[in-house]
Amino acid sequence: MKKLVNDPLKVADELVEGLVEAYNGECQLVGSRSIVKNDIPDNKVALLIGGGSGHEPIYHGLVGRNLADGAACGDIFAAPTPDIVLEATQAVDKGNGVLFLYGNYAGDVMNFDIGAEEAEDEDIDVRTVLIWDDVCSAPPTQKDDRRGIGGLVPIVKLVGAASQSAGSLDELEAFAKKAVLQTRSVGVSMAPGSIPATGKPTFDLDEDKIGLGMGIHGEQGVAEIPMTTADELTPMMLDLVFKDFDEDTEVDALKEGDEIVFFVNSLGATTMMECLICLRKAKEILNERGIQVYDVIVGPLVTCQEMAGISFSVTRLDDELKAAWDLPCQSNCYSKMEGHYGG
Amino acid sequence: MKKLVNDPLKVADELVEGLVEAYNGECQLVGSRSIVKNDIPDNKVALLIGGGSGHEPIYHGLVGRNLADGAACGDIFAAPTPDIVLEATQAVDKGNGVLFLYGNYAGDVMNFDIGAEEAEDEDIDVRTVLIWDDVCSAPPTQKDDRRGIGGLVPIVKLVGAASQSAGSLDELEAFAKKAVLQTRSVGVSMAPGSIPATGKPTFDLDEDKIGLGMGIHGEQGVAEIPMTTADELTPMMLDLVFKDFDEDTEVDALKEGDEIVFFVNSLGATTMMECLICLRKAKEILNERGIQVYDVIVGPLVTCQEMAGISFSVTRLDDELKAAWDLPCQSNCYSKMEGHYGG
Repeated sequence: MKKLVNDPLKVADELVEGLVEAYNGECQLVGSRSIVKNDIPDNKVALLIGGGSGHEPIYHGLVGRNLADGAACGDIFAAPTPDIVLEATQAVDKGNGVLFLYGNYAGDVMNFDIGAEEAEDEDIDVRTVLIWDDVCSAPPTQKDDRRGIGGLVPIVKLVGAASQSAGSLDELEAFAKKAVLQTRSVGVSMAPGSIPATGKPTFDLDEDKIGLGMGIHGEQGVAEIPMTTADELTPMMLDLVFKDFDEDTEVDALKEGDEIVFFVNSLGATTMMECLICLRKAKEILNERGIQVYDVIVGPLVTCQEMAGISFSVTRLDDELKAAWDLPCQSNCYSKMEGHYGG
Repeated sequence: MKKLVNDPLKVADELVEGLVEAYNGECQLVGSRSIVKNDIPDNKVALLIGGGSGHEPIYHGLVGRNLADGAACGDIFAAPTPDIVLEATQAVDKGNGVLFLYGNYAGDVMNFDIGAEEAEDEDIDVRTVLIWDDVCSAPPTQKDDRRGIGGLVPIVKLVGAASQSAGSLDELEAFAKKAVLQTRSVGVSMAPGSIPATGKPTFDLDEDKIGLGMGIHGEQGVAEIPMTTADELTPMMLDLVFKDFDEDTEVDALKEGDEIVFFVNSLGATTMMECLICLRKAKEILNERGIQVYDVIVGPLVTCQEMAGISFSVTRLDDELKAAWDLPCQSNCYSKMEGHYGG
């Protein structure tokens, strides 16, 4: 891959500097690699996100208006260090506590937890809600082993909206847990991205195969299947989502009349053309089941460099989640007007 | 490339069907391949865009709230037929005329012009404003030979906003001409995309070269230069933009105090990481010149399948353009809240 970068070992620092410029004065660089909003109101219950770089526009692209207050940014595909987490936490804290909301990866959990302990030592109240939407990464009885993938976009959108008016850290934590519990994703990959520092592929996959349920860094999925069509693959992916809602005793099955946000994500090189062709089939299946699509997101929002692949995320809404969804938001990753499509 | 499609010859039809689903009830499919909003108010001066498919999320992704009323969609990399243009025109017309706004490509001009004639035969008043922002495609004295590239995103955003309150087709046409005149772009390519029907690359380019000024389908640019860094390439690209404002007698030079919208576009496979690293350098140069960045757009919005490359677009704003910019908008391609970043 020919990449437009400078020093390949400094891409994470430089991209975060660029992200600050994209926010054009609304966010600032804090400490060694955190991005934080300038106008966080006093006493706001703060929302901190973060994770490895290289997946842009997530995670740090979800800092913004009615979204997250800040992000702790790791190096490429690496968790932010505890120092970075602490610096970000101090910067977003406005006296009413900080909710950490991030994808469930071992390195992130370790470093965010150390950062949280250090923040608690400074009397900052911290809670953590992990995002574990990837149903192919472990069975529903082992959610602690599940990875966070595309579902983080609707989840952060919802929790960011709720954080604007949350009365307490308890209240925001409970809201975030509900948003996570109602969000499930399935991803597939067709080809790897490349590691910026080495140019090497992020994983190996045969030319004629699809990695069903493969993670965004190439983590093992549920099967390697022959390359197929959009109309064949889409029902296979959706069935895994339906099955997970069915089998998980913590949630109801996804049923007729349920309202959802449906998100079709590209992992990078997969075109919007392909995403739309898959959406066409997915909507047909959702319609057949009587599931009401409240709103739709389509785009390359959770990427792994120029990886080819796609994921579907379903978030089931209740009235409280719908009200949070309807709030407008703006960021480098996802923006919307008030309301929802089709409303 | 492993593409998630069905019949490769039907991708344009299927992606437009998927796009209608992305709008979740706010737009409908009209005729053979047009997408049109459902709620166009009576007597609104209508805005019709369009062009070849395969560049998603443009062109048809710019139909939306406070954006275009409809789009005539061609097959992959091909102009919409006159029939499609006519069907779209009839559907968006609400009695006060229709502005055609699209990129200056010979096939599009021919077919939209025939469609316009057929619409005039049915007493629909049609005007055409061509988008020709690519400064590398011809000198400023030959704007008729210039191509439309990334600049179409800020231009359609602005004209879509103005169309919500335009009193007449004359007024909207004049506004659109101003938005086009103040918008200039420079693109580069590093690697081709592929043609969905054949899998063949869209053009040839040596592995160690960058096509400076190359068009989004591989049209000839101003030079082939050795692959370089983000910090070396960014000033070269910006200098071509500044030079064009300087040399064009129809506009003032870009000078200290001017306010602009700055758009960094990825042609597809170029990552958001790279776009942000280039933005970081571009903002430094714009700051040095005292050019005020009113708002920033970054993302893969004008693509050519999984093509690697980037473009910069500059739109200089006056008070009227700024007011149009500040209106919120929502679509598959570009969405924003009220106002602007840094405001």
